Amino acid sequence: MRAIILSIGDELVLGQTIDTNSAWLSAQLAALGVAVLQHLTLPDNQSAIESAIRSLAPTCDLLIINGGLGPTPDDLTRQALAAALNEPLELNQEWLDRLQTFFRRRALRMPEMNRIQAMIPRGATLLENQAGTAPGIAAILHSCRIYSMPGVPKEMKLMFEKSVAPHLKTTGPTILSRTLHTFGQGESTIAEKLGPLMDRTRNPSVGTTVSAGIVSLRITARFETPAQAARELDQTTELCAAALGPLIYGRGDETLQSVTGQLLAQKSQTVTAAESCTGGLLAKMITDIPGSSSYFHQAWITYADSAKTDLLNVPPDLLKEHGPVSEAVALAMSQSARLKSGADCALSITGIAGPDGGTHANPVGAVWIALASADSNSARRFLFPGDREMIRDRAAKTALSLLRFHLLGLRPPF
Amino acid sequence: MRAIILSIGDELVLGQTIDTNSAWLSAQLAALGVAVLQHLTLPDNQSAIESAIRSLAPTCDLLIINGGLGPTPDDLTRQALAAALNEPLELNQEWLDRLQTFFRRRALRMPEMNRIQAMIPRGATLLENQAGTAPGIAAILHSCRIYSMPGVPKEMKLMFEKSVAPHLKTTGPTILSRTLHTFGQGESTIAEKLGPLMDRTRNPSVGTTVSAGIVSLRITARFETPAQAARELDQTTELCAAALGPLIYGRGDETLQSVTGQLLAQKSQTVTAAESCTGGLLAKMITDIPGSSSYFHQAWITYADSAKTDLLNVPPDLLKEHGPVSEAVALAMSQSARLKSGADCALSITGIAGPDGGTHANPVGAVWIALASADSNSARRFLFPGDREMIRDRAAKTALSLLRFHLLGLRPPF
Repeated sequence: MRAIILSIGDELVLGQTIDTNSAWLSAQLAALGVAVLQHLTLPDNQSAIESAIRSLAPTCDLLIINGGLGPTPDDLTRQALAAALNEPLELNQEWLDRLQTFFRRRALRMPEMNRIQAMIPRGATLLENQAGTAPGIAAILHSCRIYSMPGVPKEMKLMFEKSVAPHLKTTGPTILSRTLHTFGQGESTIAEKLGPLMDRTRNPSVGTTVSAGIVSLRITARFETPAQAARELDQTTELCAAALGPLIYGRGDETLQSVTGQLLAQKSQTVTAAESCTGGLLAKMITDIPGSSSYFHQAWITYADSAKTDLLNVPPDLLKEHGPVSEAVALAMSQSARLKSGADCALSITGIAGPDGGTHANPVGAVWIALASADSNSARRFLFPGDREMIRDRAAKTALSLLRFHLLGLRPPF
Repeated sequence: MRAIILSIGDELVLGQTIDTNSAWLSAQLAALGVAVLQHLTLPDNQSAIESAIRSLAPTCDLLIINGGLGPTPDDLTRQALAAALNEPLELNQEWLDRLQTFFRRRALRMPEMNRIQAMIPRGATLLENQAGTAPGIAAILHSCRIYSMPGVPKEMKLMFEKSVAPHLKTTGPTILSRTLHTFGQGESTIAEKLGPLMDRTRNPSVGTTVSAGIVSLRITARFETPAQAARELDQTTELCAAALGPLIYGRGDETLQSVTGQLLAQKSQTVTAAESCTGGLLAKMITDIPGSSSYFHQAWITYADSAKTDLLNVPPDLLKEHGPVSEAVALAMSQSARLKSGADCALSITGIAGPDGGTHANPVGAVWIALASADSNSARRFLFPGDREMIRDRAAKTALSLLRFHLLGLRPPF
């Protein structure tokens, strides 16, 4: 099966928005064994879109269009698609009712222009949108299956997973993929540890990608039968696990916060946090997880030195003598947070997020993270690279990671 | 001048790498007054690339190709370009000498495969690469100027700025763009208020995009001279501002947190936060901004009911009688946070982030947000759509937005 991805939007050809949808769709299609012939990006120009659909459809089996399904005058994909199909747009009463209910529930009147979102070409099928107001459209032109989806990444991904992917039956070899996630070492260190597992000709293949400090392994098995692919996938997973040990914290949708939360729940332990430079990011990450209320009850954001004293009783002398970014203050914060909250564990973070505030002793990126438990209270100093956003992100992730290793009873391998 | 951008690389059509080059090039070209007709992405397939060059050249004045100029067997752009030009590849001795020097300086032998990088089509011109081993190629096919550059972003950007941009004399119109950001109303309501400003034939044109609740306006002006384009852009900006009023909070890189922070700093006011369901996200957003320590000192994450009492003295009876997600509790949280912190303003957030915990009275998405200041303490109830992540995100943004309107002395228009 050969596919073409067509992305629509002025913001794309003006360079105001980076096209992430094409990459995501391509990766999904590759995993399904579908070959992507090209990506094409066009402006919000109805005739250009219609013309492209007409000329691309005969050259592929699958045309995935994203963008241009909003309710405003510059959203022209459904009109272009209808024209290419030589069909009129027709009102889908069921979707119109849904739209009106969507707005009514929020005590709003449905703007008249949203009505266009309930119009689809005659003969086409509507695709469910569980995260927005624009339904997708499925149609056939000659022998090309066309799926038109919103450009909003969240809506598009959900729609693709639920309404498109299940219908792309792959006739050829079985391709199975699995992603393992690691945190704590850089990509080249991970690659070194994997060694021959990353050989380009190996099947299953192992590739790495990095995103926000998380180095993920993508294992892809291409074999004749599903059973064989599954077996090979498991074998290579075990080899990766042997090479990397507990650097691997999870797979697939798992995150540092979800696996650490699971450990807390399993051990019936609670955690609290005292944050300075991360400003609430650690607590936010912990509470990303539904059900986190069973292991997380409160946290303090002590951004100013005075707040460290007022909220957590950190002695002013300690702050004066060692400065806020110090082992002593990190330990005082974690100790106090643990005692005040009654939690089993307390994490504290104090550092220089930048871009200003760095000194010779404490440059931008210098962060102390402390972990207090019933039996111990210890702190470590890190030097995180990057800008303010990256430093805060890595600091929060490192704190979660240290908690994870503590709960596992292991020394962190970083 | 009309341009097409052609990106080459298997990693792009496999979705392993996001194409950032096309967006960057489009933005550069837009600023130079060049209209970008489309982006096309192809795999490392010589005949597909040759075929595309042949068919695209007659349709545009400028074809910018990036990718496929490396030294490995899957780098096929120069071969495809030579074939499309009907010219043989010829060795450029000067560049070969440079390559050999490049490797010799690093005490390395030049791999034989790098030799291909010194080959360019007969009649074409070599473009300097100051950051890598692959020279670019400039050629003309019919009346289309073709520039072929490396795919490595750093090399491509440097080469474009030094060797391509200076030669793109803008004989055509100047295109200037500006983005305005709004929060608080949906895309179709914004479009309704803009009315004829969004007419597709209008110049400057106004288009809208949505991302995480932020509705952004894209104003694009295409006129003969830079002065005219700038003047028209400003005029249309004023018309949009008149139509939308303070729903517009900023432009370009500005965010809700950056503009609200500026207002706090200008008025020498401080803010604190008491968060339940957002779990630290509001404090994190406030502290995204360097220098936020001048207006933000501390915050409380009172995730559990008991924490609302322990940290903020919310009476247990109040929690019992009204429940944590109530006007009474939101007001008690904001009041207490303001008094305890000494801040000028206090924001509190208490709600049902989901997916569980919804009741008939308080379904998932129900959130109370209170704002306490010297003269007042009031709360509002919102019903946010979407999943846990969206509900928390919108709640935090709404809190920032309410603070902004408070500081502006205006009623929020939502």
